[in-house]
Amino acid sequence: MASRNRQILLAQRPNGLPDQSTYSFVETEIPSLEPNEVLVKAQYLSVDPYMRGKMSDAKSYTAPFELNKPLQGGVVGTVIESKHTKFNPGDTVTGLLDWADYTAIDGNQIRKIDPNRAPITTALYVTGMPGLTAYFGLLNIGQPKEGETVVVSGAAGAVGMIVGQIAKIKGCRVVGIAGSDEKNAYLTEELGFDAAINYKTTDNIRKALKEACPNGIDVYFDNVGGEISDAVFSLLNFHARIALCGQIAHYNDTQIEMGPRFLGNFLKRSVLLKGFIVSDYADQYREGVSDLAKWLSEGKIKYKENIVEGLENAPDAFLGLFRGDNLGKQLVKIS
Amino acid sequence: MASRNRQILLAQRPNGLPDQSTYSFVETEIPSLEPNEVLVKAQYLSVDPYMRGKMSDAKSYTAPFELNKPLQGGVVGTVIESKHTKFNPGDTVTGLLDWADYTAIDGNQIRKIDPNRAPITTALYVTGMPGLTAYFGLLNIGQPKEGETVVVSGAAGAVGMIVGQIAKIKGCRVVGIAGSDEKNAYLTEELGFDAAINYKTTDNIRKALKEACPNGIDVYFDNVGGEISDAVFSLLNFHARIALCGQIAHYNDTQIEMGPRFLGNFLKRSVLLKGFIVSDYADQYREGVSDLAKWLSEGKIKYKENIVEGLENAPDAFLGLFRGDNLGKQLVKIS
Repeated sequence: MASRNRQILLAQRPNGLPDQSTYSFVETEIPSLEPNEVLVKAQYLSVDPYMRGKMSDAKSYTAPFELNKPLQGGVVGTVIESKHTKFNPGDTVTGLLDWADYTAIDGNQIRKIDPNRAPITTALYVTGMPGLTAYFGLLNIGQPKEGETVVVSGAAGAVGMIVGQIAKIKGCRVVGIAGSDEKNAYLTEELGFDAAINYKTTDNIRKALKEACPNGIDVYFDNVGGEISDAVFSLLNFHARIALCGQIAHYNDTQIEMGPRFLGNFLKRSVLLKGFIVSDYADQYREGVSDLAKWLSEGKIKYKENIVEGLENAPDAFLGLFRGDNLGKQLVKIS
Repeated sequence: MASRNRQILLAQRPNGLPDQSTYSFVETEIPSLEPNEVLVKAQYLSVDPYMRGKMSDAKSYTAPFELNKPLQGGVVGTVIESKHTKFNPGDTVTGLLDWADYTAIDGNQIRKIDPNRAPITTALYVTGMPGLTAYFGLLNIGQPKEGETVVVSGAAGAVGMIVGQIAKIKGCRVVGIAGSDEKNAYLTEELGFDAAINYKTTDNIRKALKEACPNGIDVYFDNVGGEISDAVFSLLNFHARIALCGQIAHYNDTQIEMGPRFLGNFLKRSVLLKGFIVSDYADQYREGVSDLAKWLSEGKIKYKENIVEGLENAPDAFLGLFRGDNLGKQLVKIS
């Protein structure tokens, strides 16, 4: 057991894309425990696009990260020491923990996972926050019906790949939009998407979408925003549903971007649009995890991970989300 | 009984605002009846903003008006002749009829109204399509809760005035946005709105809204779109709901207008937006009419009509909706 604890702090709030000045790296003592707390040693850390929002202090659905405090994210780790009756040293647990080697946390804020049931990293992906985000956004907001057409932007991102596979389970035609031919080949050949559009090489995204969606678009799961969404919005069917999950095209905007006004179109087609965050559905997590774990064990949901080694590489792994580096879930292996 | 039937036809589809070339005026024979049909002599005709959409042949929620056929709208009239067992000469009826002195229509497409229960024109307003539009948009989509803040654009229009009064019945703080001080005085002094903003004389609509909505905005009933909505969108609370009823600022656009992208804001606040048309709620009309008639009889809903005389003035009365002439429901008295 190392005698020091490396932490990554939020040094200043980024204006636009985060860079080295956003972070500071410190070494501290390993924390000692208060009653009911548990000391967790991180094994894997999840980096996710939503964290960009928490680096700003703009009004949002969750409290921002605090300046000069450790950043936090989804972690799977091992209990080293416990002052909570539910946990013992050696337990594998998951929760929202520091970007650090060690975190001391109230035992009520973490949950135990069974390392024999599925690879432990799936608790950060298919049966964790990204999987639940896909599940509730698609099923509760999108309400896809058999035979309908579902379009997913950011389709090769962690959430997008799960969305498409759940939509296939529900009997839909599924069209993904992603940024490379390699990603798109994976979506159609490995994950069963019916079609995939490379927005970087297509000169007319609307035309490509129209060809891929001959019956129009019934459900749109949006991770991206911007011009891709503009094109989708022009092809919606009556009573289409839009699950607004991400706007990664805009997370680093430093001014208000302009785009075509589309609400007249939503009006004419009685469209539903709902922004959401996974915690809106916290009271249904148990049902979601149960379905996702079942589909995972049945092989109906496949997944891909991209694992970077070393806590010190977490900032760059996070930036990779915005460069479109990742095919599948980006994780950082800490120990 | 006149021996001729004046009709107003759609002569050509307008590009931008309708003008004289949009319409043609003809005189025809009074139609003779097929089995189950009823001949109705129009007394009052309703002109409503949604008709602009039906003058275009763009894909929409309802079929467009046909070229060289009579325009149609809500009418209250008198049965002159009947080949339908449910109707007798002298009955007062309402339905979607021609812009004309007389219409022959299947009796199943109209309904009888009781002229002793309420003024017959209320069937074109409070208990008719505009009232039901306010009712379902506000209550089914907006779901206002006691103490919440509801903002209505186009507040002095026919639908807007009912929306605000229903929101008051539900115990909300109600803020209207309209285009004259006279309209706003009516909203606050006669209809009980808590505040009203004149968007034509306010130099900073967002600032005025912020002052009028110290606790933010929970429900937005939008009849207008454009820059007014941009301002509202920047002040929405978490889990705000938007009933998208009209976009009158854009009905006569001849090209796609640009505006600030706002979906990042909807995402951060888990906002719901739903476009709708009253017929989406056709299976609940009975409940809506019942509530509206009750509130009307109890004096909880007041209304104002603006009545123009003469079928020949219907096109200009319709245009007045876009000039913002109207305070309350615009009707045309035919006979």
